Amino acid sequence: MAWLSQLVFLAFVLVSFSVHAAGTDPLPSWHDGKLKKSIIDFVSEVTQKQSSRFVPPEDRIATFDNDGTLWSEVPTIEVEFTKNRLQEALKKNPALKKQEPYVSLLKGVPVTQLTQKQILEIFSLTHAGMSEEEFSREVREFFKTALHPKLQVPYTQAVYQPMLELLAYLRANEFTLFISSGGEISFMREVATTIYGVPSQNIIGSYFVDKLEERNGRLVAVRTSALALVNDKENKPIGILRHIGRRPIFSVGNERNGGDIAHLRFSRESTLPNFQIMINHDDEAREAAYSEKDNASLAAAKKFGFKVLSIKNDWKQVFPSQKSIAKDF
Amino acid sequence: MAWLSQLVFLAFVLVSFSVHAAGTDPLPSWHDGKLKKSIIDFVSEVTQKQSSRFVPPEDRIATFDNDGTLWSEVPTIEVEFTKNRLQEALKKNPALKKQEPYVSLLKGVPVTQLTQKQILEIFSLTHAGMSEEEFSREVREFFKTALHPKLQVPYTQAVYQPMLELLAYLRANEFTLFISSGGEISFMREVATTIYGVPSQNIIGSYFVDKLEERNGRLVAVRTSALALVNDKENKPIGILRHIGRRPIFSVGNERNGGDIAHLRFSRESTLPNFQIMINHDDEAREAAYSEKDNASLAAAKKFGFKVLSIKNDWKQVFPSQKSIAKDF
Repeated sequence: MAWLSQLVFLAFVLVSFSVHAAGTDPLPSWHDGKLKKSIIDFVSEVTQKQSSRFVPPEDRIATFDNDGTLWSEVPTIEVEFTKNRLQEALKKNPALKKQEPYVSLLKGVPVTQLTQKQILEIFSLTHAGMSEEEFSREVREFFKTALHPKLQVPYTQAVYQPMLELLAYLRANEFTLFISSGGEISFMREVATTIYGVPSQNIIGSYFVDKLEERNGRLVAVRTSALALVNDKENKPIGILRHIGRRPIFSVGNERNGGDIAHLRFSRESTLPNFQIMINHDDEAREAAYSEKDNASLAAAKKFGFKVLSIKNDWKQVFPSQKSIAKDF
Repeated sequence: MAWLSQLVFLAFVLVSFSVHAAGTDPLPSWHDGKLKKSIIDFVSEVTQKQSSRFVPPEDRIATFDNDGTLWSEVPTIEVEFTKNRLQEALKKNPALKKQEPYVSLLKGVPVTQLTQKQILEIFSLTHAGMSEEEFSREVREFFKTALHPKLQVPYTQAVYQPMLELLAYLRANEFTLFISSGGEISFMREVATTIYGVPSQNIIGSYFVDKLEERNGRLVAVRTSALALVNDKENKPIGILRHIGRRPIFSVGNERNGGDIAHLRFSRESTLPNFQIMINHDDEAREAAYSEKDNASLAAAKKFGFKVLSIKNDWKQVFPSQKSIAKDF
């Protein structure tokens, strides 16, 4: 993945550079409008020492959801990884094909029709029972060859160009950036540094209970099949507080299943000046249009005062390569 | 605590400054000798690009135990906090005085003679059942007035001067510093930034299960009485890996109950160049002399190749103020 890392790193440097260059637009892929202006106004206010809303750098904590916020969740990349791992597992152990829930899955029964227990069983089969180091290797292998089905690029390029610019802009203004996602923590850590410039210690996610074992005379952490934390919904503020020790003042999430409502509210209810964005996936032409049956995330945005980002109206460009993943791609 | 913060900050700046000034000794409170030389040699090797043992800055992860490693554990400061909180609890709820384990405690029965369950009950009574924000306030109140019984200074000054220098030296060489302690995470976070310059997100510790609740229309994290992780012994590498995602290449702990053996071994068994220090509390004259019945920590140092630090022989000065906590103080 060396060439890929270099390419992404170059893009990252170019983005950072544009932020530092005097007078240039820090968010070139964003349409000029209310939202872009309010982001820049907020960042200016909290970074100017003479401002009544000044926030010292150590409190400039920003948290970002990952799936559907920093990179595309159509399809959800970790689900694709899980499918890939499942195929490998069935190849290695064909007897599984005769057992549930694999019989149903192979018949084409969608995952949504499985029980919670069955889903967890698949998750454990594909994510646990190995050392952390072995799992990391599997993740790296997956990203080496897997391609996004519509973009036909590695999944690491299914990121949102405007969000890369926002990350660089906040970083240049001395924000400390964290990713807090429902995704599995070690899965995200393998790619987050390269694609977002966020170090592994700034990734918060769901995780399995690890057990320390001596293998070949060496202490290694082994992933058990017990999930310790599902870092979603009400658990997200808990995961954030445990990891960071403070409320974020800048938080971004997206609508799909209400997973970021508590996350953004936790930031909104900070005693410091703060800013939240709820992303609305409303761009059928360039990305995807999906919404919640109960409209909970957008209703919460209205109720609590989160800004709503419309991909259709707020972003000039969605992906770094000018490609789109929509039907008409 | 404003004057205290300023004082400590000033000391911190002075220490940092001395590190940056060309030709000056980065570790002035350390006796010249084998250990000091090996620290400086290691840092030089891993930071020089042309060295075969070069480690890029993002992998320069250092972890420090806290009690008995960065600050004194004679007495253990969190135990003093617990006693203080217990007195408050008994004042507010005198009926407790007629119940176990408080009857025994008030009779002078030492904590070591209580059952594990009873100790946990005291820990929960004094540390849980309140919001994280309320707990933080209690901790800040404690540090405002409490004095170290022998040094007669605030506990925040019961830190080891040579360790402040080591932290500053590593930081100046682009190491990222973490504290990984058996102490409760929120307790440490209230003071670690001020005294060590380590931000709250770089503190790893034991913690209670938190529950998200709405109080006065605001989401807050409330501490339940269930301990989620005791970040000691075999759990320390697990806590470190979960939080950082990588093995540390520089780790420091101390002998007392074998709490840092797995911690240092986890670093020692990194695939990158690495360095570990096990502190031996052997200075009866200036600090305290204590050891383990089974000698496990020092035996592990020999077996796995950790350096042993003798407070008596390796440190010119123990505390910032030239005071000592030993019997003849």
